[in-house]
Amino acid sequence: MAEPIANLDEIRGLLAHLPGPDIEAGTAAAARQAQLTKPAGSLGRLEELAIWLAKWQARHPPRLDHPRTLVFAGNHGVAARGVSAYPPAVTAQMVQNFIAGGAAVNQLCRVFDAGLKVYEMNLDTPTGDIVVEPAMSEEECAKAIAYGMMAVEPGIDALALGEMGIGNTTAAAALCAGLFGGAAEQWTGPALEAKRAAVSEAAARHRPAACDPFDMLRRLGGLELAAITGAVMAARLARVPVLLDGFASTAAAAVLFAGDPRALDHCVVAHLSAEPGHRRLLEQIGQRPLFDLGMRLGEASGATLAFGVLKAAVACHTGMATFTEAGVSGPG
Amino acid sequence: MAEPIANLDEIRGLLAHLPGPDIEAGTAAAARQAQLTKPAGSLGRLEELAIWLAKWQARHPPRLDHPRTLVFAGNHGVAARGVSAYPPAVTAQMVQNFIAGGAAVNQLCRVFDAGLKVYEMNLDTPTGDIVVEPAMSEEECAKAIAYGMMAVEPGIDALALGEMGIGNTTAAAALCAGLFGGAAEQWTGPALEAKRAAVSEAAARHRPAACDPFDMLRRLGGLELAAITGAVMAARLARVPVLLDGFASTAAAAVLFAGDPRALDHCVVAHLSAEPGHRRLLEQIGQRPLFDLGMRLGEASGATLAFGVLKAAVACHTGMATFTEAGVSGPG
Repeated sequence: MAEPIANLDEIRGLLAHLPGPDIEAGTAAAARQAQLTKPAGSLGRLEELAIWLAKWQARHPPRLDHPRTLVFAGNHGVAARGVSAYPPAVTAQMVQNFIAGGAAVNQLCRVFDAGLKVYEMNLDTPTGDIVVEPAMSEEECAKAIAYGMMAVEPGIDALALGEMGIGNTTAAAALCAGLFGGAAEQWTGPALEAKRAAVSEAAARHRPAACDPFDMLRRLGGLELAAITGAVMAARLARVPVLLDGFASTAAAAVLFAGDPRALDHCVVAHLSAEPGHRRLLEQIGQRPLFDLGMRLGEASGATLAFGVLKAAVACHTGMATFTEAGVSGPG
Repeated sequence: MAEPIANLDEIRGLLAHLPGPDIEAGTAAAARQAQLTKPAGSLGRLEELAIWLAKWQARHPPRLDHPRTLVFAGNHGVAARGVSAYPPAVTAQMVQNFIAGGAAVNQLCRVFDAGLKVYEMNLDTPTGDIVVEPAMSEEECAKAIAYGMMAVEPGIDALALGEMGIGNTTAAAALCAGLFGGAAEQWTGPALEAKRAAVSEAAARHRPAACDPFDMLRRLGGLELAAITGAVMAARLARVPVLLDGFASTAAAAVLFAGDPRALDHCVVAHLSAEPGHRRLLEQIGQRPLFDLGMRLGEASGATLAFGVLKAAVACHTGMATFTEAGVSGPG
């Protein structure tokens, strides 16, 4: 096993060498789609998803026998400012709920036969309060990214990535303001004044000081967000397509987009969150969500729900008969 | 067993006596939702769906152990006018494909453990050409509705309804123009001129002559559309919530809405079809689709895909821990 990554420059080096899509697998998938017993394009995004999976799994046919949901949990110094309706203790309580099987994500994983792993990240030690200091040191941030990378274990066909962390939509909004600019309320939407003020002050403090997107993540993010950034990158290297969840998860992934606009091509955003900043963030990173069900729970709930859509795409792609096989006449 | 229904007046009588929602079951579902370990409303439409299922299954908790997909297939006299890119023979060929397990809907039923039944309706005898005559006689229409009603067998927890019939989006567009008015191209969107002209002429001929929505169905619909109308009504009587599919299926259900705006309260439209008239039709009947994936295949594909969303809703509703059970702090 290689030495664990312990500084951000190693991470920066990885971003510069992300593999591209497998054109051959994508072409094979598109060719098969054209032969299946349906008018061309009539399965809409299910067709696109099958081709996307083939391209980013680098194999044809694509498979989805082993979907996996990862939930990273972290605590935030900024939560002490009353930015959330819930006390910070809820992060650890919800982790216990995940372990006991009582949360939404547990039920969703069961419905779609997805494996679930929950990673708690130093819940007793919140990150620094981003209003007055960076969330993490260089080393802490690099280790959190590396932790997320290591969670991408061998044998996974697709990943749903999510988070739990009281106060982390404040961190995510600040991170978005840091990465892409814009006033705090454009990223928080209507929010508690304490939240809006924290985002505004944190972004004003760290944006001018940050040297690049990873430094922005270090200053404005959080442990679970950094882990998601790492998991997205590791998934790309391991040929594992990714479903992103809501606002906080997408913000963590957007760090990579800010470094290289192609870095999220192996990701699809599962759903449009009801968290107000999500729509703006998706426009920023050029992602079209699969659905909009008014969800805003986090914990990978939207991404795990999207495994149903991905499974449908793979099943149609691999199981449908061709026009020739079925003796069905084509158009014209 | 009662005498089979053989005239439209009996159907009209049923529409006048549809049962309403079970308020008690709905209230129990809403009360449970408020106790589950998530911020109130954070599962968005999954919460609404759980409550809707309870109300229309008339039980709490709602269940989804036995979802069933029904596909009705029929042929249309108007297809001889070249309104479709595919020859009419494709209807029967696709029914064989359903039976052999090679169509999209077969794969989708497999993914979501839904039973599938396919009903072919006199494929050798297309309905009348709606441009010059009614599609069906009174008796044919009543029998087709009754056939669809009988397909709603006991023990089904929810239904996905779909169709197969070359030329049936022409019939559906004409039926919509008949029920709700509007120019042909508002219901067909950009289409083959033969299709636009057929819709325009058929609606102009039958709209003034029809005495009510069922007579409009008889004149402008088709066997598989009438069966769907019947299945939607029988599902209401049998306390089975319904997922509607695309343009043709929704048009068939809209016959009931035109007769009584509450008649589709036990139905949810699964998806926004890429078939252009669907958006306008959904506005007309006040339905908000669950998702928009650019699908336009019919054969209940979108409705069956939505079983994944319904299963997720039920699993979260019944499987999640309450705040008290999990020892998670509430807001404030």
